[in-house]
Amino acid sequence: MDLLNETLINIKPINAEFYAVAQRHLDNLTKPLGSLGRLEEFARKLVAITENKSPILDKKVVFTFAGDHGITEEGVSAYPKEVTPQMVFNFLRGGAGINVLARHAGAEVIVVDIGVDHDFGNPPIPPLVKGGEGGLFVSMKVVRGTRNFAKGPAMTMDEAVKCLEVGIELANGYAKKGYKIFATGDMGIGNTTPSSAIAAVLTGKPVPEVTSKGTGISDESLQKKIAVIEEGIRLNNPDSDDAIDVLAKVGGAEIGGIAGLILGAAANGIPVIIDGFISTAGALIAYCIKPEVTDYMFAAHNSVEIGHEAMLEKMGLKPILDLDLRLGEGTGAALAMLMIDAGLKIYKEMATFNEAGVSDEIIN
Amino acid sequence: MDLLNETLINIKPINAEFYAVAQRHLDNLTKPLGSLGRLEEFARKLVAITENKSPILDKKVVFTFAGDHGITEEGVSAYPKEVTPQMVFNFLRGGAGINVLARHAGAEVIVVDIGVDHDFGNPPIPPLVKGGEGGLFVSMKVVRGTRNFAKGPAMTMDEAVKCLEVGIELANGYAKKGYKIFATGDMGIGNTTPSSAIAAVLTGKPVPEVTSKGTGISDESLQKKIAVIEEGIRLNNPDSDDAIDVLAKVGGAEIGGIAGLILGAAANGIPVIIDGFISTAGALIAYCIKPEVTDYMFAAHNSVEIGHEAMLEKMGLKPILDLDLRLGEGTGAALAMLMIDAGLKIYKEMATFNEAGVSDEIIN
Repeated sequence: MDLLNETLINIKPINAEFYAVAQRHLDNLTKPLGSLGRLEEFARKLVAITENKSPILDKKVVFTFAGDHGITEEGVSAYPKEVTPQMVFNFLRGGAGINVLARHAGAEVIVVDIGVDHDFGNPPIPPLVKGGEGGLFVSMKVVRGTRNFAKGPAMTMDEAVKCLEVGIELANGYAKKGYKIFATGDMGIGNTTPSSAIAAVLTGKPVPEVTSKGTGISDESLQKKIAVIEEGIRLNNPDSDDAIDVLAKVGGAEIGGIAGLILGAAANGIPVIIDGFISTAGALIAYCIKPEVTDYMFAAHNSVEIGHEAMLEKMGLKPILDLDLRLGEGTGAALAMLMIDAGLKIYKEMATFNEAGVSDEIIN
Repeated sequence: MDLLNETLINIKPINAEFYAVAQRHLDNLTKPLGSLGRLEEFARKLVAITENKSPILDKKVVFTFAGDHGITEEGVSAYPKEVTPQMVFNFLRGGAGINVLARHAGAEVIVVDIGVDHDFGNPPIPPLVKGGEGGLFVSMKVVRGTRNFAKGPAMTMDEAVKCLEVGIELANGYAKKGYKIFATGDMGIGNTTPSSAIAAVLTGKPVPEVTSKGTGISDESLQKKIAVIEEGIRLNNPDSDDAIDVLAKVGGAEIGGIAGLILGAAANGIPVIIDGFISTAGALIAYCIKPEVTDYMFAAHNSVEIGHEAMLEKMGLKPILDLDLRLGEGTGAALAMLMIDAGLKIYKEMATFNEAGVSDEIIN
């Protein structure tokens, strides 16, 4: 709890003066005022977060937190939970969606076992079959899968805090190693179910308005999933004013890790890109603990999951992309990284009117 | 006219069987079915366009067509028309928005003088001030600025056809050189005005519904711009069933070049990314000449210009990005190229369930 409290004390709202400094430079570049829209917003935000007039994003990393969920016993997912460790191996070999898109964005992938129900030990990684560089495995297991929150709390308060601290430790460690931008990602069969539960409790929306089909369940299974979440919330009665209580009772280990990473990013003054539905549930936990974290966040994309928008709205974040994605892993965040990078390149590489000898006279 | 007619004969609808071939492969990759949304759409479309199960997009090029507009005499733009050649020099030095974003996307920039009211001769390019690699200059001037369409046709029919053929020649030439994907871009002070005129005539919408503030004119100037366009359409009476007549009477040289490039891309089986409002006016000209061209097009983004959406809807295209851009030059197309590339990388680099040893059993 000390690490968590210390981290919260270190999170400050960003200095808005840097927005103005950045905008003045953007307004001198050879383009009509404001004509690069959100790319300009990304540049301003990077300058303000880093308090650096010329930010550098040379070292980028996506953290894909993996965990299992006791709630899968209730038949809420289209895939068996064995897929979670199988996909961890896929991440390590470089064949998963996040590997492809992180390579495209020039980012490394760190795969964090924070709650998988599998003993990886010293994982014997099979030889590379396809793709390129794989992820780096980090073992920081807090639970071996959460408990079934249809029958009782998913985690104890201690476990929930430990998950947050795993995220914080990673943020602190990678900040020290000189990484300049973080992205979040998740892997965990069944994890749209706790994410919908978190969305319902923390936005106050009814469960059916924030619950959809995850990896692709039937209409009938969706009704069951909604009933399971409603019952889990009734049974555990999480305190909507205490996000850690919500995380413990109806959340998940990887969601806690993501929340902690975001808190740690903010405490270190590092921008963090929030992937889709599950990552946003983690972001909402972080926001409810410390609202200033939104200053450090970029919302990557608008997921197909219906509960996503309500959570982003609650935090006042507007997604960068809308490409009908619903894979998770950090894939949307890796794509958004390319757009954020574009904003920074515009800011740093474009010529000013003066440098280019272009008239900035506005005639009407 | 021979080159144009020959090109039109060579444009075939794409073979939809390749969509199914591509989708079968996508469905074997280690992700829930369809969970990469539009990235999967991009991959399918690339496979179908190229009729290649493993397309390669190693050589990419953005064509930025530059032209001036007699209509600027009417005070429809915020900037003086001298900015067009000044920006051409900026493109050649590498300091403009399109240079930055094309470098980010791994694409070259070809700057085509198709109608600038300036004699570039052998342009003495000033030394590089800022940025990186600049664009390559191509002189294919058809007009030295269009005529003021508030007073008569902007171009003759011969000039309009010549503009289309410039685009086709470039497409043929760069197809022969082995380029695999094209993007369109524009530079021309005043060119939202002919683009709105084209949008009004070819979508049938009233001028005020397809006209907005371009680079940033006042409310008063916007009313004047709308009146100028309405009067120009009344005076010239372009035939909405003859897109070349529309291009000649109320269009622009760079818009014609873009339309021709798109026709040439389709005839060569090369995917082409359409930038924002001006490029989409060119695309709509191409579409009205030969509707099959949409099979080869990707719509890059949703521009701030209000007439953009109506044109995309008419062609049945859905934009990839929505980042409040209104710069033109090809900037939105360069950004979209990164997303299209992402779709192709997913298609080619992800492991299948079988390769990765991941269960594809769906349990409900």
